[in-house]
This record gives sequence, structure tokens and C-alpha cells, in this order.
Amino acid sequence: MLKIPPHQVAGHQAGNGKLGPLVDESGRFYKPLQGDERGSNELKFYTSFSSDSRIPEHISKFFPTFYGTQLIEASDGSGLKPHLVLEDLSIGRVNPSIVDIKMGSRTWAPEASEEYIQKCLKKDRETSSLPLGFRLSGIQIYGNKESGYWKPERTSMQNLPAEEVKLILKKFVSSNTLTGMDLQPDCAFAATVYGGSTGILSQLLEMKAWFEDQTMYHFYSCSILIMFEKGLALEGQNPGGQIKLIDFAHVIEGRGAIDHNFLGGLCSLIKFISEILTAPNEHKSLVSSVNGVN
Amino acid sequence: MLKIPPHQVAGHQAGNGKLGPLVDESGRFYKPLQGDERGSNELKFYTSFSSDSRIPEHISKFFPTFYGTQLIEASDGSGLKPHLVLEDLSIGRVNPSIVDIKMGSRTWAPEASEEYIQKCLKKDRETSSLPLGFRLSGIQIYGNKESGYWKPERTSMQNLPAEEVKLILKKFVSSNTLTGMDLQPDCAFAATVYGGSTGILSQLLEMKAWFEDQTMYHFYSCSILIMFEKGLALEGQNPGGQIKLIDFAHVIEGRGAIDHNFLGGLCSLIKFISEILTAPNEHKSLVSSVNGVN
Repeated sequence: MLKIPPHQVAGHQAGNGKLGPLVDESGRFYKPLQGDERGSNELKFYTSFSSDSRIPEHISKFFPTFYGTQLIEASDGSGLKPHLVLEDLSIGRVNPSIVDIKMGSRTWAPEASEEYIQKCLKKDRETSSLPLGFRLSGIQIYGNKESGYWKPERTSMQNLPAEEVKLILKKFVSSNTLTGMDLQPDCAFAATVYGGSTGILSQLLEMKAWFEDQTMYHFYSCSILIMFEKGLALEGQNPGGQIKLIDFAHVIEGRGAIDHNFLGGLCSLIKFISEILTAPNEHKSLVSSVNGVN
Repeated sequence: MLKIPPHQVAGHQAGNGKLGPLVDESGRFYKPLQGDERGSNELKFYTSFSSDSRIPEHISKFFPTFYGTQLIEASDGSGLKPHLVLEDLSIGRVNPSIVDIKMGSRTWAPEASEEYIQKCLKKDRETSSLPLGFRLSGIQIYGNKESGYWKPERTSMQNLPAEEVKLILKKFVSSNTLTGMDLQPDCAFAATVYGGSTGILSQLLEMKAWFEDQTMYHFYSCSILIMFEKGLALEGQNPGGQIKLIDFAHVIEGRGAIDHNFLGGLCSLIKFISEILTAPNEHKSLVSSVNGVN
């Protein structure tokens, strides 16, 4: 039985007669193949990448597993349509907190059409992409059973200055997200989610080392997903912090150069996460007695 | 006595009634203060940077020393004009080989005028900047007393694909640059110029570590100069490989984010230099018996 993914925070979304991805119960994610060259390009990337023996396993684990394509009933009722069959990244997660970060200060490839370049350039200039090298594309932060998720309007996240992006990335790992929305985040889970030898920062650094070296692909307009389970963190267990790369409709060949555009944004993101780990309580003195969710 | 700098490879050049920088015999470099906001911005940068206590000495050494401004006779005969007084970077050098590399895939700051942005964007798209994250802006490679310098047309250097940029960076540290121009470069000085604990790669990595951390300045349209003395290399002495940052007319405040645009280009350049060091003789089998200059 196919259904609408419960934890999608960005991208085209199914429902209300719209075309969007679907998931099944066996852990597969069906993404409609876009009819234009974006679809064929994303399929080409998955096909090439999934059989590319040059990709080490500690890097391929950051990408969704690819299971080919399949004709299934599209979510908009338009009949059988080709879909990419991918790993459902939220499988096994109960109440995941997720942020989708679109990488790079430039979201267009050099050989894109003039019209597409102008459209992307305008958006890159109007959002955080240009100043920060990435933009927050969507987020959901789990509060608790009663309050559910904090899931702000996607457009409200995209053009924030550095200090507010940092605040969001602090709230992402805080226990006082919902009831204490106007208070300074407590960063209660910064050390267990972002820190540690298997935490988010370590994973980002592992990805960075690969991007400093690989000249095979340039990942324009691709996103990093950061996910973890706040429920587990609250119980003192490993919160399962994980990063994944998604959205490859605009990947091109590297042609002998590293992907400096993605890498620059990645280093920028790493700097934000590092600062939060180094000084999680920069503003905490104001609200040290408040703890909203626990 | 002021004269035209003998070793300038890029930027506005004095001579034939044109306005350009001058040098004196005491090691000072006089750069005409551009009349528009580029001039005031570069002066603002030098003034702020040279007194900024947050800049560690192992980083400030990569920047020209700033001695203030001075009214001197302009090189175009237009009378007394304000000039930035800077360290002459080629002082003490006899026959320097120099390459000027304009950094970043984007040479325009977010707040530049629309007209300026469009002009830069066009050039970034037409040159190596977009694919490589930097472009070669000018070069001179010393051959020997008889042949002098190889100094190709600046425009011919700016839009090369990755493989040809690598070839130029190999020729830069080769002994067969001039007489063996069509042959594969021998990379005879790669290890002593690019390699070693004080070589170019080490310096670039030192700069990279700072750029991964600093959120004070974003260096749009700034260049890295790489210099060394082939004469010393030929004598088996330390060739004095050195990098310097120049051209700060488009520096802006960092506002809490790292300079991902410069850093991306820097990582790209580092990858090229590393590859040359790792495999200097990738194509050498073809020309192993040829050595043009020695």
C-alpha cells in the first residue's frame, strides 16, 4: 500500500491531487521521474553512481540506495507514471527531527538554460545561499507526544542571516523548542547529536574529506538532510544522528575539478555546527532555569 | 626615483601614458587609489586589516604590508594623485616566476551594483572561474638569461579547462618551459617549490585553515600570487616559494559566515597542486630524455 511520506520537509509533496513522492511499507520511496531533463538527469546520476566502483563505502552510505525505476500510479491520479525507486530514509524512525539544507551558493550548473540560470540566480540572491553558501529548505523539529512537530513555513527559513540560521540549528538540538520558542534554545542534545565520533559533525567532516578530493561529480542544487530521534535523546540513548544527500537532478560531471561550490557551502555549514558545539550556551544565562519540553 | 614595476603580471599597468602602479627603490609599491568606491573600499580594508588584532601573524604574512596613502605624480602624467603605499612584493627577487590567480567562482559581492554584477557574472561564466573556482589572471615564467621570461597573453590564460590549467601549473615549476614549450613539462622543481614543509602547498593549507574559521572578511575578486626564483632552484638552493594575497577593492564584511566562495576556489587550487606533487610525471614517459633549459 503506497502512502504519502509522513516526514517530508521540502520538495514537491503529494496530496490534494498533487504529484509527489510515495512510500510503501517495505522501506521504499517512489519519486516521480520529472518529465523534462531533470528526470532523465537524476536517473542518469543514480544509475551511474550506484554502479561506480570509485565511490568508497563510507561515502556511498550518505546516498539513498537506488532500486531502479518502476511504473506506479501517480499521486495526482494521472495514471501510471515512471518513478525512481529509492531507499525510504525515514524508515525505522519514529518521530524524526529533520532539516533539509540546500547546498552551494550557486544552485545552477554552468550549462543550464539561460532561463533556468536567471531563475536560480534570483533565488540564490534573495535567500541565504549567496551569503552563507547554503539555505535552509525545510525543517521539522519533534517536541513531544502532545505538541507534535514544530514545522515552520518553508519560505520563512530560506533567507535568514547567519545569526538566525545558527539559532535554528540550535533549536534543532534543543529540548525547549516548542513551549520555549521565544526563549534561547538550551542545546540540550548538541553534544549527542552534533558531537561525538559518530555524530553529525564527524559525518560532515567525512563528507568534506571526500569533496576535497573527488573530481567526478558536481552536485548543484542538491540537499543535505540531517535527521535524529529526539525521543531517544530524551531517554539518554544514542539519537541516531545521520546525514544523507538527496536531489540529484542537477548533478554534472566534474571534468577534473573538485565541486568547490558544494564544498564551500559544506565548510560553511561545518563552521556553524562547530560553533554550536564549542559554545552551545552562548546566550543561555538568560534562560538557564527554563526547560520547556522535558 | 619611481619606476614601472618590472614583474607585474595582471591588473592595470603603467606605461604609455596609462595609469598604473609604481615602485621605488626602498621596496614600496604605489597603487593608484581608484577614484570610485573600489578605491575607498580597498583603503578601508587595508586600514582595518592592518590594525586588526584578531589576525594572527602566520596569516598577516600573506598580505602586503600597508604604509598608508601618499600623493605622488601619477604614471599617466595627470599630476598628483593619492596612492596606496604597499610593500613591493618582488623586492629582493632577481628573476621571479609569478602566477596571479583570481580566486572564487564568483567575483562579485552580493551588494554590488546590478551593472557590475552582470559584468562580472558574464566574465565568470566565460572563464575558468565557474568550473574551477578560480582563473589564471596572468603569469610569467623565467627561462634563463638568454631566453628571459615566458609571458603569454593574459586573456589566453583565463578560460582554460582543468587539464590545461594543470599543464600551466606544471610548466610553472618545470625546467623545460621555454625551449620545450610543446613538450610535456618535466616538473623538475615541483618538489622544491610546491612541496616541502615551507613550500607553496604548505602555505596554501595554512591559509585554508584560516579560511575555514574566519568570518570577518569575504574576499571577492582577490588574487593569490605564487612566486619563486627559478635561478635558485637551478642552483639547488631554496627557491623561496611564497604566496601573497592582493587586490582588496571588493572585500566585504563576513557577517558571521566563512568566505565559502574564496575557500571553495582555494580547495580547488590545492587539489591541482596536490595532484602535481603526487604525480608530477603523469605524462613524462613521452619526453623523459628532453630537458630544455638546463
